[in-house]
Amino acid sequence: MDLHQAQTVRDYLIQLQANITRALHDVDGTDFVVDPWRKPEGEMLQGDGITQILEGGPVFERAGCGFSHVSGPKLPPSATQHRPELSGAPFEAMGVSLVFHPRNPYVPTVHMNVRMIVAKPEGKEPVAWFGGGMDLTPYYGFEEDAVHFHQVCKDAVAPYGADLHPRFKKWCDDYFFLKHRNEARGVGGIFYDDFSELGFEKGFAMMQDVGNGLLKAYMPLVMRRKDTPYGERERAFQLYRRGRYVEFNLVWDRGTHFGLQSGGRTESILLSMPALVSWSYNRVDAPDSDEAQLTAHFLKPRDWV
Amino acid sequence: MDLHQAQTVRDYLIQLQANITRALHDVDGTDFVVDPWRKPEGEMLQGDGITQILEGGPVFERAGCGFSHVSGPKLPPSATQHRPELSGAPFEAMGVSLVFHPRNPYVPTVHMNVRMIVAKPEGKEPVAWFGGGMDLTPYYGFEEDAVHFHQVCKDAVAPYGADLHPRFKKWCDDYFFLKHRNEARGVGGIFYDDFSELGFEKGFAMMQDVGNGLLKAYMPLVMRRKDTPYGERERAFQLYRRGRYVEFNLVWDRGTHFGLQSGGRTESILLSMPALVSWSYNRVDAPDSDEAQLTAHFLKPRDWV
Repeated sequence: MDLHQAQTVRDYLIQLQANITRALHDVDGTDFVVDPWRKPEGEMLQGDGITQILEGGPVFERAGCGFSHVSGPKLPPSATQHRPELSGAPFEAMGVSLVFHPRNPYVPTVHMNVRMIVAKPEGKEPVAWFGGGMDLTPYYGFEEDAVHFHQVCKDAVAPYGADLHPRFKKWCDDYFFLKHRNEARGVGGIFYDDFSELGFEKGFAMMQDVGNGLLKAYMPLVMRRKDTPYGERERAFQLYRRGRYVEFNLVWDRGTHFGLQSGGRTESILLSMPALVSWSYNRVDAPDSDEAQLTAHFLKPRDWV
Repeated sequence: MDLHQAQTVRDYLIQLQANITRALHDVDGTDFVVDPWRKPEGEMLQGDGITQILEGGPVFERAGCGFSHVSGPKLPPSATQHRPELSGAPFEAMGVSLVFHPRNPYVPTVHMNVRMIVAKPEGKEPVAWFGGGMDLTPYYGFEEDAVHFHQVCKDAVAPYGADLHPRFKKWCDDYFFLKHRNEARGVGGIFYDDFSELGFEKGFAMMQDVGNGLLKAYMPLVMRRKDTPYGERERAFQLYRRGRYVEFNLVWDRGTHFGLQSGGRTESILLSMPALVSWSYNRVDAPDSDEAQLTAHFLKPRDWV
């Protein structure tokens, strides 16, 4: 891990963000707001980023995609629980994170994140590790959509070891779970963290396969569902289910919580929030309705591929 | 503190909930859903409650008011940080908690909570303490509304000591603060916790003065503002500001967070969520607009009375 390699990762991430937002723009027609930012000198975390967001489009109601690259004098304890020897070392972290909330309730919401953290302990070699993944949150369940999404996830990590996909899939199911509802956030995908077991070159290659997989995994579902007719019933259900997304991200998601509590850039962290959300008391759907089947059946973890 | 006293507090709380919901019903015309619940035998916490909620009314879009009374074998550490000698003792907790989200953006949102916790250490006298308060969250600032609300808060606690109001007002300003926005949630009110310094009789009397103060503090504002004409601009701002309410409650509020993470009754805890909420990126209002003035000026803590 050297400076040149870190620059290569940064270049890749910026390019990934550009590719993904261009693809969404091509489908939606709406321009992304492109908001480059830099942390003021003197704050604990230094760094810069590019926040991109498309709001109020015909296909995407709110689609945020952020690149950020920060460095700090001391790795937070939460980042080094598996690496006590690096505790408190200077670090760099860079990544791309996105959440796309479509307008049509038949199009699922997607989340992806790829990131690299580099610890730079004094007088020692820098140590890099990777994390990320992607997961899908449908409002109405379509088996073929879930299968396709999981297949792309599997293909992305398959070259790096046969054991990775089952590990990362289970990790995803376990992580994106609303304990206070006893409910999965969606149908999962892959999630991994602290990944350094294959070294920098392979770890970075896998990051690229995951990052590049997002459009392959998601855009076919958008194209397939975006013009499905829907009415007030489906819209109301979508707004209600988006409440679950908010609950997960604000109550359980470690990244969101840590970011908000430690002085991260609030508007960039909350790119993940939907444009419009509703809550209502004790909603109960008829047991055989598509709405009831979503949580009763479709969101139960299973082997999709 | 004996069993008879605990029953008296319970009776008061149930009556308070009934009085408050009746008053809202009289203004709105919509019936509250009344949902009595009881925790299944065998769970860690035992107890019962009555959740009442009015949704979709002409005056209140979502108004939730819950009574709950739970007991458990071990006081959680968060409840005994000032009383290490009671750590792990069996306990009872009872209270009324409410959040009213009006439809008209010129009517503020209000929150109130009154609660009593009783620790029952083995072989010793039970120890009771009180907590609660109320606070106001306007979308558009009216000085006379804030002054009235704070005056009622002050009057409620004045009989119990001249020092209480300034203490409880500051506690409220400090607590209902969004650190990730550097913004107050609203114009405050009063907030207190761990209150046992005056003993049971006076503590309970103050609980009643605070509880009974809610309608005096809030209903005049509802009557004054509920028919104010408004348009899409005010509605959009209200939905946007409600996002702050969600952020505070799900990210910072200890009661909400602890409840959701420890197996509380989710739908009752989330009575506080608004019916409809929006997020948008980096909203900026013209500096002299009422919308910009809310955070730039009106929500700054000050002595209102």
